[in-house]
Amino acid sequence: MIKLAIIGTNWITEKFIDAAIQTNKYQLVAIYSRDVNKAKIFAEKYHARHFFDNLLRLANQPNIDVVYIASPNSLHFSQAKLMLEHGKDVICEKPLTSNYQQTKALIDIAEHNQRIIFEALKTYYLPNYQLIKSYLPKLGKIRKVLLNYCQYSSRYDSYLNGNNPNTFNPIFSNGSLMDIGIYPLSFGLSLWGQPQQFYATSSLLASGVDAHGSVLCNYNDFDMIIWHSKVTNSYISSEIQGENGALVIDHLSTCHQVTFHPHQGEEKIISITQQSNELYYEALEFAKLYKQRTIDHQGIGLSLLASSMLNKIRKQIGVKYPADNFEIKE
Amino acid sequence: MIKLAIIGTNWITEKFIDAAIQTNKYQLVAIYSRDVNKAKIFAEKYHARHFFDNLLRLANQPNIDVVYIASPNSLHFSQAKLMLEHGKDVICEKPLTSNYQQTKALIDIAEHNQRIIFEALKTYYLPNYQLIKSYLPKLGKIRKVLLNYCQYSSRYDSYLNGNNPNTFNPIFSNGSLMDIGIYPLSFGLSLWGQPQQFYATSSLLASGVDAHGSVLCNYNDFDMIIWHSKVTNSYISSEIQGENGALVIDHLSTCHQVTFHPHQGEEKIISITQQSNELYYEALEFAKLYKQRTIDHQGIGLSLLASSMLNKIRKQIGVKYPADNFEIKE
Repeated sequence: MIKLAIIGTNWITEKFIDAAIQTNKYQLVAIYSRDVNKAKIFAEKYHARHFFDNLLRLANQPNIDVVYIASPNSLHFSQAKLMLEHGKDVICEKPLTSNYQQTKALIDIAEHNQRIIFEALKTYYLPNYQLIKSYLPKLGKIRKVLLNYCQYSSRYDSYLNGNNPNTFNPIFSNGSLMDIGIYPLSFGLSLWGQPQQFYATSSLLASGVDAHGSVLCNYNDFDMIIWHSKVTNSYISSEIQGENGALVIDHLSTCHQVTFHPHQGEEKIISITQQSNELYYEALEFAKLYKQRTIDHQGIGLSLLASSMLNKIRKQIGVKYPADNFEIKE
Repeated sequence: MIKLAIIGTNWITEKFIDAAIQTNKYQLVAIYSRDVNKAKIFAEKYHARHFFDNLLRLANQPNIDVVYIASPNSLHFSQAKLMLEHGKDVICEKPLTSNYQQTKALIDIAEHNQRIIFEALKTYYLPNYQLIKSYLPKLGKIRKVLLNYCQYSSRYDSYLNGNNPNTFNPIFSNGSLMDIGIYPLSFGLSLWGQPQQFYATSSLLASGVDAHGSVLCNYNDFDMIIWHSKVTNSYISSEIQGENGALVIDHLSTCHQVTFHPHQGEEKIISITQQSNELYYEALEFAKLYKQRTIDHQGIGLSLLASSMLNKIRKQIGVKYPADNFEIKE
């Protein structure tokens, strides 16, 4: 069993714990929260032996194999670094860090310490994502791609009411691109790599983060649109158009349903019913890497590529975080 | 009854004749085709008294009030000019001409001769387009717009087989943007005017025209994507996203079905069942302008705006037509 510790006590950590337990490959041993009572309640609920409000104590605790980090984005780097340097493997929620410089540094630290750093970008590890990849040759020459994730944030009402929720606060390296846009962006980059050129638009909130945005990526023969928003809902699907047919993808981040529309002939649903907790697949993937001690896994390249593009897009749209002033110390 | 002459003998002219007859406001009197036999057969079929293979004779024929032009794009300007200068009103298929310079010149010629020039951009005149306009305030702050028209051309197979069909031939000022993209582009411009900035991509065929393309338009608070293709089919709808709700539009050019999705509450189909021949509405609109002798109608501004944007987009994507070398003579 992989001995698991958790940083953060929110809905995503609960979801990840459930997924990890489902795989029968993890045992939850420790919980960290800034609020020690929260950590204790959480630990009791999941029968974890340890709870902490001190990160260094968590890092120094023996008998922890991997730490799952689901804190605000701006904390990922320092927390992951601390754990890696104390011999833990790390699963970290997306985006891995605040920027490319941090991502690169963190990957170097993991390698130096011979630990695994794993970005919990759930989409890559879904069976339906693999099915999409396997269907691409049937589409013929790819011409047009729309990757769409627009979801009204439950915190936007709070923001509009004059509050300052984390999710719209640049202190935490947040905003639409980082929270939501990363799904369609990573999806596209994982299939087709870096575009030849791109143009990004967005609308900034007074807080300084982006409310929503679009990126038009040019790959010469085809183009790809990244569509993301935290202030509107979308009711249309994503689509990959080829000259011989198209794939329509409902709920891109989970690839919930995928339909193949051949240019001629009947449409066909090609997706399978996945685990309702779709984090199951990333938990399973990490367990495989863990067992084989694969430090230099495929996700590393994708994390670097995505964080590099996130930097470039943020430069175009003018979103800067305090974390961008971080200096890499060797 | 408005005495109608037709230039062109293809499916769109038949469709327009049917629509015009349906309104009970037109009488078909003359047909022009380069092939006199085609003109004759067409005239007989529709009980038109005259047929021509000579444009000047058509222009000089008395008892013709309006000429509907559905020839290849590159011929629109000279044919419309001839008719306007001979005292006919003109209904001309979209795009009105090959470029902004021609469009501006043609509108000046119409005004000088006190004739009506009317671009047959059917979408503007549909009841469901008007319904969309009336629903925009219910959407709250508009944030994201995708206007989508991607349709595999029946002539693309012929092109791929080494032929040179008109629809992919720059001689005729054709290509995806001019044939298909003009629908979503005009739609967006008519609702929100010229964007602050835009970025256009496309893939060119060896013939020199664009096979498909995208335009990302930035309006500061929101962005709009124009998505067009003649080499792929799309199976998703168009969408206008506001903070309070979204409109999903099936078959943008005809606004066939429009669904309102409020941010909270039940979705609702707001569109009506339109005439199956949707050109009915443009024929009706022209009849109204004709009756009132309205030279300076709303469509003029929209035609100028669209042709100006088409020029700018073509400059970005590098599509140039022989017609662009046309010099305006006073």
